[in-house]
Amino acid sequence: MQTHDFFLILLIILLTARVFAELAARLKTPSVIGELLAGVVLGPSLLGWIEPIEAIKLMAEIGIILLLFEVGLGTDPRQLARAGLKSLVVALSGFSLPFLLGFSVGYWGFDLSLLVSLFIGGTLTATSIGVTARVLTDLKRQHAPEGQIILGAAILDDVMGVVLLALLYEFSIGGGVTLGNAGKVIIFVVAFFFLAPMAAKLMSTIIKHINSTTEIPGLIPTTIVSLVLFFAWLAHSMGAPELLGGFAAGLALSRRFFLPFGTALHADPSFAECIETEMKPIIHLFTPIFFVMVGLSLNLHEIDWSSPFIWAFSMALMVAAVVGKLVGPWLIREPRPTRWIIGAAMIPRGEVGLIFAELGRESGILNNEIYAGMVIVIAITTVLSPFVMKGLYSRFSHRLQTAASA
Amino acid sequence: MQTHDFFLILLIILLTARVFAELAARLKTPSVIGELLAGVVLGPSLLGWIEPIEAIKLMAEIGIILLLFEVGLGTDPRQLARAGLKSLVVALSGFSLPFLLGFSVGYWGFDLSLLVSLFIGGTLTATSIGVTARVLTDLKRQHAPEGQIILGAAILDDVMGVVLLALLYEFSIGGGVTLGNAGKVIIFVVAFFFLAPMAAKLMSTIIKHINSTTEIPGLIPTTIVSLVLFFAWLAHSMGAPELLGGFAAGLALSRRFFLPFGTALHADPSFAECIETEMKPIIHLFTPIFFVMVGLSLNLHEIDWSSPFIWAFSMALMVAAVVGKLVGPWLIREPRPTRWIIGAAMIPRGEVGLIFAELGRESGILNNEIYAGMVIVIAITTVLSPFVMKGLYSRFSHRLQTAASA
Repeated sequence: MQTHDFFLILLIILLTARVFAELAARLKTPSVIGELLAGVVLGPSLLGWIEPIEAIKLMAEIGIILLLFEVGLGTDPRQLARAGLKSLVVALSGFSLPFLLGFSVGYWGFDLSLLVSLFIGGTLTATSIGVTARVLTDLKRQHAPEGQIILGAAILDDVMGVVLLALLYEFSIGGGVTLGNAGKVIIFVVAFFFLAPMAAKLMSTIIKHINSTTEIPGLIPTTIVSLVLFFAWLAHSMGAPELLGGFAAGLALSRRFFLPFGTALHADPSFAECIETEMKPIIHLFTPIFFVMVGLSLNLHEIDWSSPFIWAFSMALMVAAVVGKLVGPWLIREPRPTRWIIGAAMIPRGEVGLIFAELGRESGILNNEIYAGMVIVIAITTVLSPFVMKGLYSRFSHRLQTAASA
Repeated sequence: MQTHDFFLILLIILLTARVFAELAARLKTPSVIGELLAGVVLGPSLLGWIEPIEAIKLMAEIGIILLLFEVGLGTDPRQLARAGLKSLVVALSGFSLPFLLGFSVGYWGFDLSLLVSLFIGGTLTATSIGVTARVLTDLKRQHAPEGQIILGAAILDDVMGVVLLALLYEFSIGGGVTLGNAGKVIIFVVAFFFLAPMAAKLMSTIIKHINSTTEIPGLIPTTIVSLVLFFAWLAHSMGAPELLGGFAAGLALSRRFFLPFGTALHADPSFAECIETEMKPIIHLFTPIFFVMVGLSLNLHEIDWSSPFIWAFSMALMVAAVVGKLVGPWLIREPRPTRWIIGAAMIPRGEVGLIFAELGRESGILNNEIYAGMVIVIAITTVLSPFVMKGLYSRFSHRLQTAASA
């Protein structure tokens, strides 16, 4: 690979992703959809300009763990406690129902194998914090009661989703679906989830100390990226997907993270802010590469659009994806409009769903048609949900104001 | 290449570079020397842990054009005008004498070929703005008269060095050393140097406009990196080395850049500052990878240390490198201590010298022993010069104060 060819490919990816993201934003659609489309346009589906070369693939992998790092960084464990039981109910039902429905669609509806059906169910569990938080913020409802419930449920959903992902990952590389395998992974993941943030916190304290004495600039970018890479590598060594490591590192470094013991390591807001400021440009540089790669790896020509399978499959999945998320809010005590809004807010699968589907494709579990069907469902839920939420808010605005001030 | 293996290699490179840079800084040595050493330690010369895989090599290439972008960003064309004639005299002599001496050492002293000798001379022309500016800033002399002369001369040196590099590059890939080739390159480079900053300025104006209207974060990292990659690619297409593009893009976006015509495009300090803030973390992440790769590509085992050649060659080169830079200050009207200080400040070759040598090695012109000899000279000049400068300043401090206030 010649250096200047690589430069050209990378800059085409970055610029096209940006142009499509901007267009998506003008159409009031999440920018991640634009980046995905950029990949579809550049890849074998349309223009065929860009082939996924190894160096770009590896940079995309950095992008995805950095994105999970950012999600972790934005996670507030205390918010979970505050939103409390209601979030838990919404999250649990919004996790288990889509999983069961998606699994059923695959296993019984379309006679797919156990592992494939598990992956399909797993992909439907995701809730895109990114998209949901963005819409709530746009509407200035992120601190309203229903906003708190939604954000809390989305975070819990993410944590459960990552654990499930670790499980499926182990099944796919290890010896199939067994209880022993599942037990091992859950022990590892739980251990990792408790120990990794503490270890990361300790390391960040060391980095903070060095940062106050060093004369050479650039400490935070190199050491924090190294920290994230290290936990991704560690997660992999323990049999969990690399993303889990990125998420754990982000959680540990988040502004509101607290350790269960020891006040010596409590979060330092100014240092956390410093990390955010310096890491954001790096995260923003790498993550679009991932979503473009997802679009690139989708070859729409290879799919037989005349076969009834793909249409029936994505329709059935779409119903599972929507219904699965709408039930939860009816299990909690909230006014009817709030229930609809919470349900709609949980529907977009966004980047987390894509990560799931991509992992399934990469490990060879999902074939091209199933993968395409899932990407279609992910894209539609992600694109439509913001419009639905905005519609519901403007329709019920009067009654919601009352609910919020009650 | 497995993703987790890649993560591990990248994090080892980043962390080792940092540890060695910190150690170098504690020993009052430029941090670039530490990063170089990190590569020597990790590579085939010592531990043999890391092999230069393609993805890391390509990331190192991004690092080096981003470094040149940063140098361009820090360049102040007005400062050149201010330091004026004295800088020009120091720069011209500090460029041509080392070139002639280095060439003579190679061509007549050691019977090397024309192209190899030209590369040796070219490598010796460099002056490390980074190292010199750092020492001057540490001593708070960057705004003193001699500081202005030194910085101006170092910048001019860089510009001439990059043009020379473009020439040698064309000779090495094209049809050897001919006047026609040289003329073509000089026309291209001059055209590039005049047109590229204007084009880059225009593009940055567009980016600035989008930046004020966009809702999606991350515009600057993706578009500015794309801009730098584009000019690197463009430079290559015009037969110049990629670095030249990075430098031109940086120059265009620098806070003090001005276009010869049209006030509509004059520099906007707040936007330039914004670019600096967001690009710094990215530059700091990528550049150490380049210097570690330089160390990695140096296999000290392959060098026959018992042969008199390497010793005689590096000794002769060392003399050429020092003497060539010391003559210039005696051609201008300055007190004797100032002359010594200016001479010492011009000696460190630093990263620019390394880039030269690395380009020669990569294109197969410099063999292992010549390359090693040059890296030794670059390392010694870079390490020693700051000590000499500090020694001269503390010895002549009394007389310099008078000169500065005169």
